[in-house]
Amino acid sequence: MSKVTFLGGGSFGTALAILLAKKNNIVSIYDRSINVVNDININRKNDKFIKNLTILEEVTAFNDIEEAVKDADYVVLAVPSHVIRSVSKQLKGKIPDNIPIISIAKGIEEHTDKRLSVVIKEELDNPVVILSGPSHAEEVALELPTALVASSEKMEYASEVQNLFMTSSFRVYTNDDIIGVEIGGAIKNIIALAAGVLDGIGYGDNTKAALMTRGMKEISRVGIHLGGKAETFYGLTGMGDLIVTCTSMHSRNRRAGLLIGQGLSVDKVLDEVGMVVEGVKACKAFYELKEKINISMPITDMLYKVLFEDKNPKQGVEELMLRDKKSEIF
Amino acid sequence: MSKVTFLGGGSFGTALAILLAKKNNIVSIYDRSINVVNDININRKNDKFIKNLTILEEVTAFNDIEEAVKDADYVVLAVPSHVIRSVSKQLKGKIPDNIPIISIAKGIEEHTDKRLSVVIKEELDNPVVILSGPSHAEEVALELPTALVASSEKMEYASEVQNLFMTSSFRVYTNDDIIGVEIGGAIKNIIALAAGVLDGIGYGDNTKAALMTRGMKEISRVGIHLGGKAETFYGLTGMGDLIVTCTSMHSRNRRAGLLIGQGLSVDKVLDEVGMVVEGVKACKAFYELKEKINISMPITDMLYKVLFEDKNPKQGVEELMLRDKKSEIF
Repeated sequence: MSKVTFLGGGSFGTALAILLAKKNNIVSIYDRSINVVNDININRKNDKFIKNLTILEEVTAFNDIEEAVKDADYVVLAVPSHVIRSVSKQLKGKIPDNIPIISIAKGIEEHTDKRLSVVIKEELDNPVVILSGPSHAEEVALELPTALVASSEKMEYASEVQNLFMTSSFRVYTNDDIIGVEIGGAIKNIIALAAGVLDGIGYGDNTKAALMTRGMKEISRVGIHLGGKAETFYGLTGMGDLIVTCTSMHSRNRRAGLLIGQGLSVDKVLDEVGMVVEGVKACKAFYELKEKINISMPITDMLYKVLFEDKNPKQGVEELMLRDKKSEIF
Repeated sequence: MSKVTFLGGGSFGTALAILLAKKNNIVSIYDRSINVVNDININRKNDKFIKNLTILEEVTAFNDIEEAVKDADYVVLAVPSHVIRSVSKQLKGKIPDNIPIISIAKGIEEHTDKRLSVVIKEELDNPVVILSGPSHAEEVALELPTALVASSEKMEYASEVQNLFMTSSFRVYTNDDIIGVEIGGAIKNIIALAAGVLDGIGYGDNTKAALMTRGMKEISRVGIHLGGKAETFYGLTGMGDLIVTCTSMHSRNRRAGLLIGQGLSVDKVLDEVGMVVEGVKACKAFYELKEKINISMPITDMLYKVLFEDKNPKQGVEELMLRDKKSEIF
């Protein structure tokens, strides 16, 4: 039995909190919204983020971060990627250095393009474990079979997190390639956004399968250059997560792409979808990177032109199809 | 301009015949059904196999194989896998040995477990090219963007076929790993069948993405052992085709799995789906193979138990989830 504190009461965090409570752990959730805290503590639910879910009595919510993390054996960072740094700063000095930090956020830091584990390590001395993979929160809450990866530079921490979370409907694999796990999780949003564009134009299953497959080649090509392993990109946190994202309407990246494919302007779409779309950020970051390191990323390249240079998406697809004749493996 | 003869007037063959006719080739289709031949020659359509399609005047159908292949520069074997050998035998002596044979069938030969290019080579001395990848015939006919692979032991033949077929909506990559292309195309049906079972039980996107990702690990593990390359299994003919198959109701493999997951007996399902389900055949073949060569294929193993040993599918999934804790990469 451990004490686990979640920072952030979003949908995935709440689903995982309930999973751990069912495994007889003591679980705290810190959220800065007093409404979320009260909904959990009083009504035993969290309707703002995840509907139709009863939150067990073993879960307590706090509006005070210091109170929430007191005596925690593990702290789970369950906040969006753009506040990872500020929440890590807030945590500084409030927990001992040996407590593992588990991050479930995906993406890269804006402006610095840093991986999130790097951001956390710049602010805290604790060991960091990334928990990532194809996982709609709603399905985890319903205990539908889900498989994820716990990744850390030191396998002992990844194994601890594997033991902490694993159940008969939640399988956790370990992987020490934290670079591959985080890079794959960020770049896959580029391909998910592009998949949405194709759906918006009205193309079919053939086109999307080709995009995803050739997109994975791009991900692994640049990812290996950045120090990740091919096996990781083709694992649960890369290919697996890409499959879930490209086939789901829950994905903001795919939804944004869909509207762009239907002809809406990029600015209007970003307004409409309402939040930072990770795929747009990642597309810009990796476009700039590939220009520097001279690696071929034809899909990222074309998406960049569609997003930032007014390229017609349909015209873009046709140009991709007619590029130089190639061998599949190179 | 070439003369290309298709043996078999099925949906994919017909879609490709029209594509080549539009590229100004002379195209013949041989079909053993006089009704199909007449429908093409008289009505300019092939409603039995592919609806709402106008067949150009440049396509002529024949009921006589010898007449159809006369002066052909390329012969396309567009028949199901179980008649590849008999049609190859029929072709013997009717075309010069230097004419490339292009096969668009997928699977392995029953009883012998041989790859189809091996079967063709046992009957004919011609060079063999496999054309494979994620491609619903209906979408090819609508000119929706599609990417495939032309594979041959000698790259010159693969390149010829790439040149023959490539258009602005039909992109062809070459690949000299014919073993990987054929093995991937056969094993992926095991995973597609298993994906159908999960859908039939009522599991969600998380479960299916996990199955497909871990299924790809099995495919590449056994495929590499058989002489194929990892990059091929994660290419269009492996992963790409798996994605299309697992998300489509057109797939007989997925449909058969769906019914099994819903609780129908395997015998009843095979009756209902009406034809040989490649995934069942492949599951048996690869189950027997993995026992011999001692390679871990947990999904194939479990599917075999469900298909042939009355294992309850839901129980099977739970056992897979609770196997020994593992690292993702091994």
